Amino acid sequence: MPIPTEVDELAEQVRAGNRRALARAISIVEDRKPDADQLLATTFRGSIGPIVVGITGAPGGGKSSLVSELIAGIRSGGQTVAVLAVDPSSPFTGGAILGDRIRMQEHVSDPGVYVRSMSTRGHLGGLSDAASRALVVLSHAVFDVIIVETVGVGQSETEIAEAADTTLVVLTPGWGDGIQAAKAGLLEIADLLIINKADLGGADEVERDLALMLELGAQPGWVPPIVRTSAVEHEGITELWSEVLRHRDWLETEHRGVDRRRDQLSTLIRRAATAELVTRFQGLEVPAELTERVAQGDLDPWTAARSLIS
Amino acid sequence: MPIPTEVDELAEQVRAGNRRALARAISIVEDRKPDADQLLATTFRGSIGPIVVGITGAPGGGKSSLVSELIAGIRSGGQTVAVLAVDPSSPFTGGAILGDRIRMQEHVSDPGVYVRSMSTRGHLGGLSDAASRALVVLSHAVFDVIIVETVGVGQSETEIAEAADTTLVVLTPGWGDGIQAAKAGLLEIADLLIINKADLGGADEVERDLALMLELGAQPGWVPPIVRTSAVEHEGITELWSEVLRHRDWLETEHRGVDRRRDQLSTLIRRAATAELVTRFQGLEVPAELTERVAQGDLDPWTAARSLIS
Repeated sequence: MPIPTEVDELAEQVRAGNRRALARAISIVEDRKPDADQLLATTFRGSIGPIVVGITGAPGGGKSSLVSELIAGIRSGGQTVAVLAVDPSSPFTGGAILGDRIRMQEHVSDPGVYVRSMSTRGHLGGLSDAASRALVVLSHAVFDVIIVETVGVGQSETEIAEAADTTLVVLTPGWGDGIQAAKAGLLEIADLLIINKADLGGADEVERDLALMLELGAQPGWVPPIVRTSAVEHEGITELWSEVLRHRDWLETEHRGVDRRRDQLSTLIRRAATAELVTRFQGLEVPAELTERVAQGDLDPWTAARSLIS
Repeated sequence: MPIPTEVDELAEQVRAGNRRALARAISIVEDRKPDADQLLATTFRGSIGPIVVGITGAPGGGKSSLVSELIAGIRSGGQTVAVLAVDPSSPFTGGAILGDRIRMQEHVSDPGVYVRSMSTRGHLGGLSDAASRALVVLSHAVFDVIIVETVGVGQSETEIAEAADTTLVVLTPGWGDGIQAAKAGLLEIADLLIINKADLGGADEVERDLALMLELGAQPGWVPPIVRTSAVEHEGITELWSEVLRHRDWLETEHRGVDRRRDQLSTLIRRAATAELVTRFQGLEVPAELTERVAQGDLDPWTAARSLIS
C-alpha cells in the first residue's frame, strides 16, 4: 500500500468535513500553489457530484438575499449546502451588497452550510478557471448542493454560472426594457428565470416581456420557467427550488444531463489549457530591444507579440 | 509609390476626423476582423500621442457624471476629447448608470467630442487587449485628450485604467472603511485620488483615512494628490484637471514618462501575446476520447489540458 502523501491527507480531511482543511484546499487550487495539480487530480471525480446551481444577474437584483433564502429552504429539507460567491464588488461597495453577504453569513454557524467568497481579482489563469478549480474541491467535500453566485456583468462571471447543472438568471421589475440584445444574452444561458423583488410592482410587464422573448427564441426541449420571488417577503422560494429539482429530473430522464456534462467538460478542458498557457506567458520577459522598437513606432505591439510567439 | 490599400484609406479617413470611419475602424480592431492586424500596424505610432487619462472606481461613485464634467472643462479650454467607456453594467442596470451615460451623450452633438462604449463581453482575447486596440485607433484620430473610463471591480478593468498616462481613482464618502486591502490595491494604481460626491458629507473622514494610507505606503517620487469633487455641484473639476496636467509635467520633467511608457509597452506586448494564444486556443477541438476519460474520472481536466498543450 502506498504511503499517503500530505495531499492525500488533506483530501481525506476535506472529505471528512474538516472546514479548515477545506478552506486551505480551496486556496491551494485557486492560487495555483505547488500542490494544486496533485490536489485536483486527487479530488476530481468525473461526473458524480452534488447538484450545482449557478445564479447570476445584474448587481442590485437581490441575488445574495435570494441565496440566503435558498440556503434556509435547502437546510429545512435536511440537505447540506456550500456557496461559492464570486463577488467583484464586495470589497468596494460597502452598504447594500456587504449587508447581503452578512445576511448570508448568518448561516455560517450552521455546520451544514459553508460559504466561500472568491474575489474577481488576482487569478492568474482567469476567473472561470479559478472557480472551476474551487468547485472540484467543494464537490469533494460531500455537500448535497453547491450554489455558485456571480454578478453576471462580465464574460467570465456568465461562463461560471453557465457551467452549473442548472443556471438561474435573476431579474427585477426595474430592469430597463430598451436593450433586447443584452436580455437575449442572459436568456440564452437561463434554465430558470427569476423575477425577484416581485413585491415592488411592475413584475407583470417584465414577465410578459420575458415570455414573449422566450417564445421568439423557443428551442425544442426545456422551456425555462419564470418564477416570481421576493426574498424580503420570503415568497416564491419553495416554488423556485421545486423548479430546480424539476430541471434536474428533466436532465436525467432525457439524458440531456450527460450531453450537457460532456459539453461542459470539453469547455473546461479548453479553458484549463488556455489558463495554463496564460499562466506560463505571464512570467515571460519581453526582450528590451523588442519593446524599444515598439516604443520607436517601428513595430506595433501585436506584430511584436506574434514574433514573440513564433 | 505603392497603391493605397483599403486599410490605408480607412486610416486616412480616421486621421481626417471622419466619425463613421473611426467607428468602423474601432470595430475592426476590437472584433479582430480580417483587416485588424494591418489596421493596427498602420495606425500605431509608438510614444507620440494624446494625453490618456484612465478613470476607475467602484460602481455608483459617479464616474460618468465626473467624466461629463471633465469633457465640459476640456472643451472650454478648446481641446478635443474622446472617451472610451468600458461599461459592464450599462445594458443591465438601467436607471442611474444609463442616466449618467446619457448625460455624457449630451456632448455628442459637439464635433470636438467622441464617446465610444465598449461592452465587457465578447472579446475573444480579453477586455484589456480589446481596449488597447481601440486606444491605438482613437489616438490615430488626433484628439488632444482620451479618457478611458472603467468600472474598476475586475482585474481587466483595473489593468485598463492603469495603462493610461495618468490614472484617476474615484472614491466616495460612503465607501466602507473595513477593507484596507482592497483600498490598498486601488491606491497602488492611483496617480490622483478623487473624493467625489464630497457634498454628501463624510469627505473629511475619507480624506484622513486616505492620507494616512498614502503616508504608510509612501514611495519616493510622485505623491498622489487627493481632490474633492462634486459633479452635481460642478465643484473641483478645474482643480482636478490642473492636477492631471501637473502629473503630466512631472512625468515629462522627471523623465518618468519614458520609463512608464516602456513598462506599459512591455506589458502590452505580453498581453497581446497572451490574447493571441487565447484566441488560437478558443477554436481548439478537444478530442472526444479525452473528454470521455475526464467524464469517467480517469483524468482531471487540468491534467488533460496539459496533455493537450504538449
